[in-house]
Amino acid sequence: MMERARPASRWVRTFGGKDTQGGAGESRLLGGKGANLAEMCRLGLSVPPGFTVTTEACGYGVEHGGALPPGLSGELRAGVEHIECVMAAKLGDAIRPLLVSVRSGAAVSMPGMMDTVLDLGMGEEVALGLARATGQPRFAWDCFRRFVDMFGEVVAGVPHERFEEALLALKQQRGVRSDLELDADALEELTNRYLAVYRRETGHMLPTDPYEQLERAARAVFASWNSARAVKYREIRGIKGLLGTAVNVQAMVFGNLDGASGSGVCFSRNPSTGEPGLYGEYLPCAQGEDVVAGLRTPLPIAALGERAPELHAELVRTAGCLEAHFSDMQDIEFTVQSGKLWILQTRSGKRTGAAAVAVAVDLVREGRVSRAQAMQQLVEPGHVEQLLHPRFGDEEPYRRAGRVLGKGLPASPGAAVGRAVFSAEEAERRAAAGEAVVLVRVETSPEDVAGLHAARGVVTSRGGMTSHAAVVARGWGKPCVAGCADIVIDTRARRFSNGRVSVSEGDWISVNGTTGEVIAGAEPLVEAVIGGAFQTLLEWADESARLVVRANADTPEDAEVARRLGARGIGLCRTEHMFFQPERLLAVREMILADDEAGRRRALERLLPMQRGDFRGILLAMDGLPVTVRLLDPPLHEFLPHEAAQREELARDLGVPAERIGARVRALSEQNPMLGHRGCRLGITHPEITEMQVAALFDAAVGLRQEGRDPRPEIMVPLVGTPAELAHQRAIIDRIARLVMDRAGVEIPFVVGTMIEVPRAALQAGAIAAHAAFFSFGTNDLTQLTFGYSRDDVASFLPRYLELGVLADDPFQTLDEAGVGELVALACARGRAARADLHLGLCGEHGGDPRSVALCHRLGLDYVSCSPYRVPVARLAAAQAALSHGKDA
Amino acid sequence: MMERARPASRWVRTFGGKDTQGGAGESRLLGGKGANLAEMCRLGLSVPPGFTVTTEACGYGVEHGGALPPGLSGELRAGVEHIECVMAAKLGDAIRPLLVSVRSGAAVSMPGMMDTVLDLGMGEEVALGLARATGQPRFAWDCFRRFVDMFGEVVAGVPHERFEEALLALKQQRGVRSDLELDADALEELTNRYLAVYRRETGHMLPTDPYEQLERAARAVFASWNSARAVKYREIRGIKGLLGTAVNVQAMVFGNLDGASGSGVCFSRNPSTGEPGLYGEYLPCAQGEDVVAGLRTPLPIAALGERAPELHAELVRTAGCLEAHFSDMQDIEFTVQSGKLWILQTRSGKRTGAAAVAVAVDLVREGRVSRAQAMQQLVEPGHVEQLLHPRFGDEEPYRRAGRVLGKGLPASPGAAVGRAVFSAEEAERRAAAGEAVVLVRVETSPEDVAGLHAARGVVTSRGGMTSHAAVVARGWGKPCVAGCADIVIDTRARRFSNGRVSVSEGDWISVNGTTGEVIAGAEPLVEAVIGGAFQTLLEWADESARLVVRANADTPEDAEVARRLGARGIGLCRTEHMFFQPERLLAVREMILADDEAGRRRALERLLPMQRGDFRGILLAMDGLPVTVRLLDPPLHEFLPHEAAQREELARDLGVPAERIGARVRALSEQNPMLGHRGCRLGITHPEITEMQVAALFDAAVGLRQEGRDPRPEIMVPLVGTPAELAHQRAIIDRIARLVMDRAGVEIPFVVGTMIEVPRAALQAGAIAAHAAFFSFGTNDLTQLTFGYSRDDVASFLPRYLELGVLADDPFQTLDEAGVGELVALACARGRAARADLHLGLCGEHGGDPRSVALCHRLGLDYVSCSPYRVPVARLAAAQAALSHGKDA
Repeated sequence: MMERARPASRWVRTFGGKDTQGGAGESRLLGGKGANLAEMCRLGLSVPPGFTVTTEACGYGVEHGGALPPGLSGELRAGVEHIECVMAAKLGDAIRPLLVSVRSGAAVSMPGMMDTVLDLGMGEEVALGLARATGQPRFAWDCFRRFVDMFGEVVAGVPHERFEEALLALKQQRGVRSDLELDADALEELTNRYLAVYRRETGHMLPTDPYEQLERAARAVFASWNSARAVKYREIRGIKGLLGTAVNVQAMVFGNLDGASGSGVCFSRNPSTGEPGLYGEYLPCAQGEDVVAGLRTPLPIAALGERAPELHAELVRTAGCLEAHFSDMQDIEFTVQSGKLWILQTRSGKRTGAAAVAVAVDLVREGRVSRAQAMQQLVEPGHVEQLLHPRFGDEEPYRRAGRVLGKGLPASPGAAVGRAVFSAEEAERRAAAGEAVVLVRVETSPEDVAGLHAARGVVTSRGGMTSHAAVVARGWGKPCVAGCADIVIDTRARRFSNGRVSVSEGDWISVNGTTGEVIAGAEPLVEAVIGGAFQTLLEWADESARLVVRANADTPEDAEVARRLGARGIGLCRTEHMFFQPERLLAVREMILADDEAGRRRALERLLPMQRGDFRGILLAMDGLPVTVRLLDPPLHEFLPHEAAQREELARDLGVPAERIGARVRALSEQNPMLGHRGCRLGITHPEITEMQVAALFDAAVGLRQEGRDPRPEIMVPLVGTPAELAHQRAIIDRIARLVMDRAGVEIPFVVGTMIEVPRAALQAGAIAAHAAFFSFGTNDLTQLTFGYSRDDVASFLPRYLELGVLADDPFQTLDEAGVGELVALACARGRAARADLHLGLCGEHGGDPRSVALCHRLGLDYVSCSPYRVPVARLAAAQAALSHGKDA
Repeated sequence: MMERARPASRWVRTFGGKDTQGGAGESRLLGGKGANLAEMCRLGLSVPPGFTVTTEACGYGVEHGGALPPGLSGELRAGVEHIECVMAAKLGDAIRPLLVSVRSGAAVSMPGMMDTVLDLGMGEEVALGLARATGQPRFAWDCFRRFVDMFGEVVAGVPHERFEEALLALKQQRGVRSDLELDADALEELTNRYLAVYRRETGHMLPTDPYEQLERAARAVFASWNSARAVKYREIRGIKGLLGTAVNVQAMVFGNLDGASGSGVCFSRNPSTGEPGLYGEYLPCAQGEDVVAGLRTPLPIAALGERAPELHAELVRTAGCLEAHFSDMQDIEFTVQSGKLWILQTRSGKRTGAAAVAVAVDLVREGRVSRAQAMQQLVEPGHVEQLLHPRFGDEEPYRRAGRVLGKGLPASPGAAVGRAVFSAEEAERRAAAGEAVVLVRVETSPEDVAGLHAARGVVTSRGGMTSHAAVVARGWGKPCVAGCADIVIDTRARRFSNGRVSVSEGDWISVNGTTGEVIAGAEPLVEAVIGGAFQTLLEWADESARLVVRANADTPEDAEVARRLGARGIGLCRTEHMFFQPERLLAVREMILADDEAGRRRALERLLPMQRGDFRGILLAMDGLPVTVRLLDPPLHEFLPHEAAQREELARDLGVPAERIGARVRALSEQNPMLGHRGCRLGITHPEITEMQVAALFDAAVGLRQEGRDPRPEIMVPLVGTPAELAHQRAIIDRIARLVMDRAGVEIPFVVGTMIEVPRAALQAGAIAAHAAFFSFGTNDLTQLTFGYSRDDVASFLPRYLELGVLADDPFQTLDEAGVGELVALACARGRAARADLHLGLCGEHGGDPRSVALCHRLGLDYVSCSPYRVPVARLAAAQAALSHGKDA
């Protein structure tokens, strides 16, 4: 082959032969596929030669009403000449015909774009020439009719069904059932019929000039960049800043040419388990599309080792080379033409969470990647999450069967199966009887907590990612679909319907909290297995991270789970969650209904031993680690029953008139409970509650210390907005703690701090720090107040905001850097200026969101605290943040 | 009289004679009374000589368990010697006896402190001596028995009733009815009985050593500084930072000595009207206490001119001298002893709003004070407010009669009288029939607006100073008592009760919005008269002020009132207030209930002409001045009926099933409406609403311009939190405005700006300013969000916060400088950095609060906007701020 002088290309980069111009680093310009094809050529692998039309050419078209850039025609011809030169064949030539494939390829893979036109360059003369050259007329006509079909559909917009109809008619005429039974003659006839379909549908002849074919195909690929589906996809995934797609034009190779040909797909490791070794499928005498079509059953890749050991060995070498080169498990497409291996594509292989973790750890052990690379590039937080929840083995069958009843927000990942129930009481009753249930509610309230706990999964028709149901469910690692507006729930009739299908109490349903689907019937579940590699990876993560990860846990059980999942303490123990068990709730209600402080104190005395017991369990589970206990936070009316029947029951239980309870509920009801009489406002108007909680906590700690344990309580005052509030509560805490410790003759080291969740607290952080050993940013409320959004009501406009791009992200999922983040940064700076040793953390839902964890790292926080089941995710995210931004960013 | 060498005093300052050590500037050290007594001595006025024990001595006692400071005994003696020297008499001496008065006097006058002990120095020997020296034994014994009574009560804690009982018994024995009938003999007997009462009640003899009497009296005055009532008073009034009270010891002079003696009180001008000329009362042959006791009817001061023209002339001269010296109208107490005038006290006179304004303007015209002094020192914002509302002529009678049914928050000042009604409909019905009504509701909602408008006054049992009722009432200058927890309202039974008295629908009640009292029966009303002086003062204010004052007005009528009261434009026109009239409400509801955008547009088309009409009226009333129109702000559910009966009526009106309305109400209902789907969130999800409002506004403006008027619309987008929200709404506004103007061929200059009421907007002010010509700080919502307080729910803890000092002020009344103020300052700085000509204003309720107006001035805002009836208050406050802090503070 001779080196030729070629004009410098503006829009085209060649690969293959001796003239590879691109490489893996250029995916922005060449798309992922084009960049990797070039890279493989550089590695000396056997790749069909070709060229890539750059994304800039697509960008030009976007800005110029779909026009191809000037000069592209000439460059396309030069690119084709490069292929012809390497392949020693010629496009459109009848003697040594060259066929090419045309494929789109953006920097990010994207459904909805025009995908592939194969066998481009075809025409009647060429088909006859190909038949002659290969001696296989059936193969030649088959290529031609496939080309007409693909070009017609994807370039000229002819509905694929028109071609299918023609095929069906011919099969009926010939009395055959399978395409494979059609001989060369029949396929020639079919090609002619396809050409007729094309003429009829488009009003034009199929272009016979191969360069016209090529230009039209390239134009179609570019146009598909802005197809509705592709635009929507980019919008949903937040894909921004790309120029367009590239177009890859490549010499065709034929796996269906003869018995020594075939096509296959293989992974360099097992994508389900991560196990090392080639894994994949091979279909002899077939093109890649036949493997996908599934008409014939492919062989496992190992079978190639027996049939063609050299070929298998070459594939193993190639896979190893690609894996080493790309430092990741590869997903490889290949074709064998008459015994020669051609690599058509390589990319990082999609894998399960388990595989991702196993591959990452193995690659480190094999010395292929560093620990940092493994954590930053080979494992995503989503992988870690997958490992923590059971899931459905296969999601396709139920989707294909149309059993999806509705789709809501994927509020808490994992899968659950159970009988539908429509009240918390029914959930408890059936669960107690050993039934698996899924709780279905319009929305949930703290009264439903026992029912939520009893259920395997939760579905609500209202509420967002941080609605009560979603938060509670995530906290327990329980699958939840929230805000599923597709279904209408009739709580009284105990059924729900999506307009087509109705589900009554006791019917089986399945919940996919990872995708947001609610499914009719009981889907088979796969339990997650956590292997040793997972443990190893998270240990590496802890070594790399600066941020410490704690858990939000309200019970001894949650605390144990959290510690098992690697939490280094509790960052938020919501004491009110201890109040919802029936016998406690009664005492709480008695306190609320008391006429005076004395009455309240009597009821609180009954609560004290119960709360002390909880504190003991939690401190024990976290022995030697800090436990941050938040004083009572919600408004009191949350503890009172809101329905008449329940109020009457309570009246009977307490021996008071129902009217009095009703009056109290009305008196306590609030227009905006979120902004009402809660947090430290309660502790200030009702100091006896703070006293009881502190006494219970120190009683428990003193008891444990006397048994030789190491309890480390931290008391957190909620909803502080002024220094005086914290000073007021702190005086009570210090006094009661001293009293309990002196009585026992035991010293418990403890600290008092505050939530920063009210914007004013962030502004006043300097003055507040005078009374606080730590700040914990309550970013749920801080986000609500900084934006003026109610988490419970945001569903009415937030989806539209995301659609319009008014907001880039849901601020309740991903911490808002520009607004809330500035308040956090400001509070950190003012707090630390006032008190250098101030300990800073975050305990909102954002503590389990990887992007928010990264922001926390950059903001200089000391720790994040999240739901127990998100602790491993946060540990990895903390490591990734430290690796990306430096440990002291 | 001889100059003596005296030791330097640590705790005592003398006045009178030739040795006056204090002066008016020292009220912190000497108390107000002591400082003014010294000042009068310096002016050469005839003041009984005396000395003041400093507030530092009291402070010493507070810190040392009530002990008198070391050395004070000696200084008291030195002080008495000073008096003895001037008066040529001696304390405790039987030949030339000196008697002294002992009075408390802090820097601020304060009820609840020990007030006065007269005739100190008395004893049996002294009484006999005084009888001899004056030749009036009855006078001497009368002084003695009064001393025993006063000393016993205020120093030794003997209940006054014990002395009264003894007096009554003696009168019965002597067969007389009046004290005046008791002769010298009887009074000697009475004195002895009083001494016996003293012995019996205290177990001790009355001290005869006059210095022991003096020290004990001083100690009692100091102790009264920390009496429960005085502490409470200081707490309520926010009086802080004082050391204690001073004690004034002064030679007694006797207005009851003979026929040429007497006592009186006079003002240098009429305290009700401000009219120049001495105004007051004189009682011949009486002590000051007799004037107060009211047993004899005093003469008008003019009568003194006839009886003793020289004395009257001296009094006129003295009053003039004091007024000139203190640059203010004076309230003067005097005694005439045997023809000689003694001035006992002078202080700035309390006055009505009308008098304050008249006096201020007169004193400027008389050249006594500068305009700046007049505005800063002689008129308080409260005075201006008084001038704008009718009031009760006299509040004492109804209080004495126990007709106060309850006390709530003084939410909107002024007085109203009417029949109690318990629903908005009844208020409208009766008002239409010509009845005066007071609307009594648990709380009000926008549905009650027509009823609020129809009522003379409003009472609610729930809600704070910025509850719906309070805000609406203040906006209309209508008296309102909010959150009156003393009464329980039974809306269904149409009555309320305070536990003792029950008021049914149709009963007359009176409302004192200035004090917060709800009164049984119909109190007589005094209508306010606004004189020319008021106009003059406010014109001066406008000249001095930098801040421009606009009004919040939603109707043409409000706009007219506002302009009459001096508003320089409208800073906030709440367009939703135009939606509550019945025929409009129906169209609004139709819009909300529409199934799709097309249905909404149909309903909006019906609203457009109505809204256009309102805009026309408002722009006309403010012709040539800016009118800031805020786009629809409240959540849509506020417009839907919440009671079943109303929903059924609406269903009939609209011809839709009631169930559909119920479903829509439920679907739109929100957990926290304040944080919900409102403001620009509505305009973004329902752009057709924005379109209609902008079209209506520009239609109106174009029409006026074509008639030769000068409409100046400004469009304000509410609840913006991100730049993208404002950009979105602004694009609609610009497009529709262009459309309307092009259609008419008329250009209307206009600007688009935004509320800054969400903390995030303040933080993002720089980016938001790129789309905004002005910012208007919505400090109601900004306060709610910065603190995390719901205005509607704050009553449950805010009173306690103020009591404990957790907050110094209600942040909804007085702008919170440290928190909300910082956000405002930050937004101003960022906004102006991004856009130098950014116009900055405030349109929250704070715009009518003088202290908040002062803060706005210091923050560098360009304008404030407040309720029409607060415009004059804000104008004065703006001037005061500029005078105190410089025009460009």
